[in-house]
Amino acid sequence: MPNKEIPYKIYLEESEMPKAWYNVRADMVNKPAPLLNPETRHPMTLEEMSEIFCEELAKQELDDTTAYIPIPQEILDFYKMYRPAPLVRAYCLEKKLGTPAKIYYKFEGNNTSGSHKLNSAIAQAYYAKQQGLKGVTTETGAGQWGTALSMACAYLGLDCKVFMVKCSYEQKPFRREVMRTYGASVTPSPSMETEVGRKINAEFPGTTGSLGCAISEAVEAASKDPGYRYVLGSVMNQVLLHQSIIGLETKAALDKYDIKADIIIGCAGGGSNLGGLISPFVGEKLRGEADYRIIAVEPASCPSLTRGSYVYDFCDTGKVCPLQKMYTLGSGFIPSSSHAGGLRYHGMSSVVSQLYDDGLMEAVSVEQTSVFAAATEFAKVEGILPAPESSHAIRVAIDEALKCKETGEEKTIVFGLTGTGYFDMYAYQRFNDGAMGDYVPTDEEIAASLSKTPKVSE
Amino acid sequence: MPNKEIPYKIYLEESEMPKAWYNVRADMVNKPAPLLNPETRHPMTLEEMSEIFCEELAKQELDDTTAYIPIPQEILDFYKMYRPAPLVRAYCLEKKLGTPAKIYYKFEGNNTSGSHKLNSAIAQAYYAKQQGLKGVTTETGAGQWGTALSMACAYLGLDCKVFMVKCSYEQKPFRREVMRTYGASVTPSPSMETEVGRKINAEFPGTTGSLGCAISEAVEAASKDPGYRYVLGSVMNQVLLHQSIIGLETKAALDKYDIKADIIIGCAGGGSNLGGLISPFVGEKLRGEADYRIIAVEPASCPSLTRGSYVYDFCDTGKVCPLQKMYTLGSGFIPSSSHAGGLRYHGMSSVVSQLYDDGLMEAVSVEQTSVFAAATEFAKVEGILPAPESSHAIRVAIDEALKCKETGEEKTIVFGLTGTGYFDMYAYQRFNDGAMGDYVPTDEEIAASLSKTPKVSE
Repeated sequence: MPNKEIPYKIYLEESEMPKAWYNVRADMVNKPAPLLNPETRHPMTLEEMSEIFCEELAKQELDDTTAYIPIPQEILDFYKMYRPAPLVRAYCLEKKLGTPAKIYYKFEGNNTSGSHKLNSAIAQAYYAKQQGLKGVTTETGAGQWGTALSMACAYLGLDCKVFMVKCSYEQKPFRREVMRTYGASVTPSPSMETEVGRKINAEFPGTTGSLGCAISEAVEAASKDPGYRYVLGSVMNQVLLHQSIIGLETKAALDKYDIKADIIIGCAGGGSNLGGLISPFVGEKLRGEADYRIIAVEPASCPSLTRGSYVYDFCDTGKVCPLQKMYTLGSGFIPSSSHAGGLRYHGMSSVVSQLYDDGLMEAVSVEQTSVFAAATEFAKVEGILPAPESSHAIRVAIDEALKCKETGEEKTIVFGLTGTGYFDMYAYQRFNDGAMGDYVPTDEEIAASLSKTPKVSE
Repeated sequence: MPNKEIPYKIYLEESEMPKAWYNVRADMVNKPAPLLNPETRHPMTLEEMSEIFCEELAKQELDDTTAYIPIPQEILDFYKMYRPAPLVRAYCLEKKLGTPAKIYYKFEGNNTSGSHKLNSAIAQAYYAKQQGLKGVTTETGAGQWGTALSMACAYLGLDCKVFMVKCSYEQKPFRREVMRTYGASVTPSPSMETEVGRKINAEFPGTTGSLGCAISEAVEAASKDPGYRYVLGSVMNQVLLHQSIIGLETKAALDKYDIKADIIIGCAGGGSNLGGLISPFVGEKLRGEADYRIIAVEPASCPSLTRGSYVYDFCDTGKVCPLQKMYTLGSGFIPSSSHAGGLRYHGMSSVVSQLYDDGLMEAVSVEQTSVFAAATEFAKVEGILPAPESSHAIRVAIDEALKCKETGEEKTIVFGLTGTGYFDMYAYQRFNDGAMGDYVPTDEEIAASLSKTPKVSE
């Protein structure tokens, strides 16, 4: 149907929604390196994994051969409450830019968590419930993941304990309150409730915390009670698996209108959104069925792909989590406090790291004032006020569309709009007041942080 | 297609979206009473109206005979960015309540203004642009309307001056910041920028303002510059006309699946959402084509329909606006500061008032702690965190569904979910902390306020 008029928003029918997640690892020639036990430095076994994670999730974490994993009916039903997410044709942005490019974005912000995080939160909560657990623990930085998990737990009647990075807890009281409304307990991290928290508080009095520290606290809290497991919102293989729903829906929507994407763009923090969005497209590349330019966009202040090293590293400050081979800036790296929003994690998903290392995708870093300028421009013509994280993708989508304007090429650009910025108005305020700066770490800072990665003989 | 399975969300196709607004006044036997000039007490002429409002909007305000008014293409295009809004089957809420009732809600929160207000904002901004104006002025209380108008003006390149009730300006800095991001200027009201603001500040030092006062300031600001007109987000006939898109889409979605509503429920402040939602259904009642139970839900702390009088009253504190016959608590009535969110206006749309007076609909008032309890229950199972305003409708929808549980009746309940509560987390926090109370004005308070309505011989 090449002449079919393309609507502003392409919605799949409920019956067209994907019924299985796609596991890109099954099609990867070079599989992501195995997780290592932080004590023994041997690959993590299912038994070891199951002490931290729910058993079914541990299986998904280790499974790099099954291409399609059916989505349980109860999760499908939950998805139907807020999915399918629309694939939006950015007609107004195209017109504003005067570009011949065709721009589409997959919008994941139409749910109360305000982001794509809910896609994995409901899956992880579901498997915890299936295993007969009482509850789950987790960390949250910017707050989207904690909100998503608290929503999923409220729906299933599970207990939810969130360790929220202290500076975020204080700067985003409303995020905290949404989680409380959904019945979660929210503790500022580092707290005095865990050994690792007490230790960090003693070592760094007055610290406002970090994601790596909150992870350690959440893992410890889960380990102290057999009725709990730890769950997390990014980086891990299982999360990318669940997030493949984004890419599968995007691909189905494009196919429905016979649209062929040229460039696919996603913001990259831990890699959950990016990995989910690109999975089916990378799969086609890996199988030699199609070709796409794929671009990961990361903040210049936390540039793990573009300036990090591809080595084994700790996932958390307390060094209790499995070691992971990934593009990393070192687990001690903390982005400047002037950096707004999420995308603050020192490392990158193993899957994304391996795909990048294999040259299957590109990466680019952008400075935050240019990101907020793109966000504001987008908001004014497309209506949606984007999250700072998502706006990294907008920046590069606009840049690519402007290149098309110069060359006259009618490329089709697809990017992931992961969420809304309603809880990020402090950052917007700084931008509106002209008080926002850019920060780029020096080579020396990154080298110093990287020097502390563990020595692992592969 | 009576056996067609009903999806969680009914989306109309773009081609099925309404192309004209429905003007319920055309079918009303008893027309709403005319607006009166506050000086002469004679019905407002088009010329007089056009000094305050854009000419096309003034025409719409006075037109009580044209049933369908075509929606200009540019507005239709804007609608396509965030509409059609889904009609959601509340499967999860039904299950949680164990009710045989079938519950549907029309969700208007999937846009950055967070509410239905955008439907009229874009229309009013469009006509201002058509008239060659430089910009518009308005007031905002809870902030949805100001946000919606700033979005519409940013899209069309119009200047937007918002007078924001001072207590809201201070308590909702993020709302203010969203408006600034969309390029609007936001002034706390009462301000020192207008005569009426200076007068109120002198008379009541330290006042945190009211909607009636902010209206007066916005009208005065517009009157001082021929390139500006005043626009407003509720109460007026033109607003209900634009908001009829809600009801038209709702009806089209129900018809698509052969669903017959029994009860239609909407929250009522100034009446814009309620009037828009019910218009096509009331039209059927008026034409004898169908029957529905229609329920307006208002806060017990600001009960204009259930405890007010149906008389001519001032629309604003400064008494510069036309007089309107409506159910009112008196223009000096200010709800307790403990009342959260919107629905704080002293009067009710003339159309809704007349329909209520004619017995074509019912009204009920509810206390806010029961409203927040319903909101929280709804959020946990349906995912969406509702605005406090919208939650009034949720409260009564749940109550009606529970009645069905007792009687075993399988009624079909449709309610309007006007928006999301992301900027209302202070109120949720008070509720979560058990610190929220209820306030109901005494008969004496209402009588004292009503004694100051103008004497008009009809």
